[in-house]
Amino acid sequence: PYPLTLNPYPLPSNMFRSEEDFLSLIDLYFPRQHPHLLLGRGHDCAVLNTPARLSMSSDLFVQDIHFRAEYFRPEHIGHKALAVNLSDLAAMGAKPLGFELGLIWSKNLDQDFAHHLFKGMSNLAKQFDLALAGGDLSLGESLSLCITIWGECPEKILCRQNVSCGDLIFVIGDVGLARAGLYLLEQKSAFLQDFPTCITRHLCPKPLVHEGMLLARSDCADAVKGLMDVSDGLAQDIPRFLGPNLGLEIDEQNFALHQEVEGYCRLTDQDPLVFSLQGGEDYALIGAASPDGFVKIKELLPQAWILGKVVSTPGIFLHGNRVEMKGFDHFES
Amino acid sequence: PYPLTLNPYPLPSNMFRSEEDFLSLIDLYFPRQHPHLLLGRGHDCAVLNTPARLSMSSDLFVQDIHFRAEYFRPEHIGHKALAVNLSDLAAMGAKPLGFELGLIWSKNLDQDFAHHLFKGMSNLAKQFDLALAGGDLSLGESLSLCITIWGECPEKILCRQNVSCGDLIFVIGDVGLARAGLYLLEQKSAFLQDFPTCITRHLCPKPLVHEGMLLARSDCADAVKGLMDVSDGLAQDIPRFLGPNLGLEIDEQNFALHQEVEGYCRLTDQDPLVFSLQGGEDYALIGAASPDGFVKIKELLPQAWILGKVVSTPGIFLHGNRVEMKGFDHFES
Repeated sequence: PYPLTLNPYPLPSNMFRSEEDFLSLIDLYFPRQHPHLLLGRGHDCAVLNTPARLSMSSDLFVQDIHFRAEYFRPEHIGHKALAVNLSDLAAMGAKPLGFELGLIWSKNLDQDFAHHLFKGMSNLAKQFDLALAGGDLSLGESLSLCITIWGECPEKILCRQNVSCGDLIFVIGDVGLARAGLYLLEQKSAFLQDFPTCITRHLCPKPLVHEGMLLARSDCADAVKGLMDVSDGLAQDIPRFLGPNLGLEIDEQNFALHQEVEGYCRLTDQDPLVFSLQGGEDYALIGAASPDGFVKIKELLPQAWILGKVVSTPGIFLHGNRVEMKGFDHFES
Repeated sequence: PYPLTLNPYPLPSNMFRSEEDFLSLIDLYFPRQHPHLLLGRGHDCAVLNTPARLSMSSDLFVQDIHFRAEYFRPEHIGHKALAVNLSDLAAMGAKPLGFELGLIWSKNLDQDFAHHLFKGMSNLAKQFDLALAGGDLSLGESLSLCITIWGECPEKILCRQNVSCGDLIFVIGDVGLARAGLYLLEQKSAFLQDFPTCITRHLCPKPLVHEGMLLARSDCADAVKGLMDVSDGLAQDIPRFLGPNLGLEIDEQNFALHQEVEGYCRLTDQDPLVFSLQGGEDYALIGAASPDGFVKIKELLPQAWILGKVVSTPGIFLHGNRVEMKGFDHFES
């Protein structure tokens, strides 16, 4: 009864008439059967075929807090809600297995919107062979997605705050792009088309799952002392990664500034390095290693770059001077 | 820095100033360390010590959809958000292990409200030695809780739609109370004090976790052909339990009408049996067994009662006549 290939707008614009309608639509995009699922959706619980150690995480994706319906296409909403969760697994080097979706649906959204949202989400899920085990559906004031994701935890647990003075902090991926993209979109900038990577990074970030798994599983796992994904901005996430007693001296020479970020900062008269340090939502990975350990990491992942060196004074320092910056906090105005 | 015992209102009424404030408050009620958690909150993922088969489920608890802040005390909101999830584990006979909490917080709620909410939630979690593994926090228009819960799946998977013609459908717990409670509260009834069990059932339901585990794990597991919790009302949930090809002939003689439901129906001039069949949110368990199997179940759980007998015609029948009823559907007005 369902089309096998989905055109961009396969259905006349119409609203859902029942929960069963909605759940049938989900079945179009997410198979109920999957090797990870001993029992799939349609029961009180799913039953999972689980390894002895599971990495587990949850992330909310809330309208007008995490995304604007004005410039997010529904594909991007579906993609990004899952991507930010996959990024948490990436930060543990975990192999993605499955997820649950708590979906608060806004009554004014139609079936087309849902098709596109689930298309974006399922395309990303397929990349990592991820099973949708279950979830819940409710109406609400505005669209919110709450995803809980899990994966197989590698032997070595790559957590935060396992760092020593003299270690290097390295980055996989780049930073500052999503922040520039957000500002350009929020301000309806006339220069949007000059910053395609920034825009795409904000709308459709790529979680570095394979990179995280490589760091956790290969010979270099011994060299990686800890790993974390950058979601709230380096300025806020670095202290969380280092713990309360350590700081970071930024290595300006090696700092990988993206040319679009440089362009955006020229346009807006800002320091691109300070701007990049405040940027969140790129979902880069940061890790810690000894200088010798970093050599091994660089062999495996040549794109890794050095953000700086761990020092014994808490704070973030540039040429010995403390850089005062703040990342995003939901409770600060 | 934290009080060891918490008075009903331990703090002056005040708002949260940062996410760290909020997360510290959660730590007061939910320990970060637990035998189930190899790595607790404060990292990108939790790491769980998991059995080979995990039962997993999610339930949303959304303001003005699932609860009214007008008559739910914050303790009850915290309790019920978790209780409805525990009930899904109960329906699989699973042993509760842990949960994740996606919390959309309304900015006008203060720290006192949060204390009481987490008190209600943590008291229930302690009853089942349940670990809060992690979650996410965001602001939003109104209060919403999205919980994903998991537990150890018993050997026999007690799912839906494993029922044959001639089987008995039995119930553990009673039905119709929460529905009467909801109406009494919504209508600000002058008779609230005459229906304490109905009110408590709506505000503070007890998930039948031990009963589910007994049915799944004891000698009588062979006798139990399937199990489900009643959340949307028997009228809606029975067809889901039976599947599309079977129906149920109600056994009026054995129907366990609660005296408060009878009283409420007298007051409002309704048929108490039909009213009870439409009642959801009591979180009773329904199961299927052969007549011989039910004898065993009754020995183990004397409170089990017979709802009716499975027949080959889809629908719900009373004295051979089809009873037309509907449960709750988010998408129907």
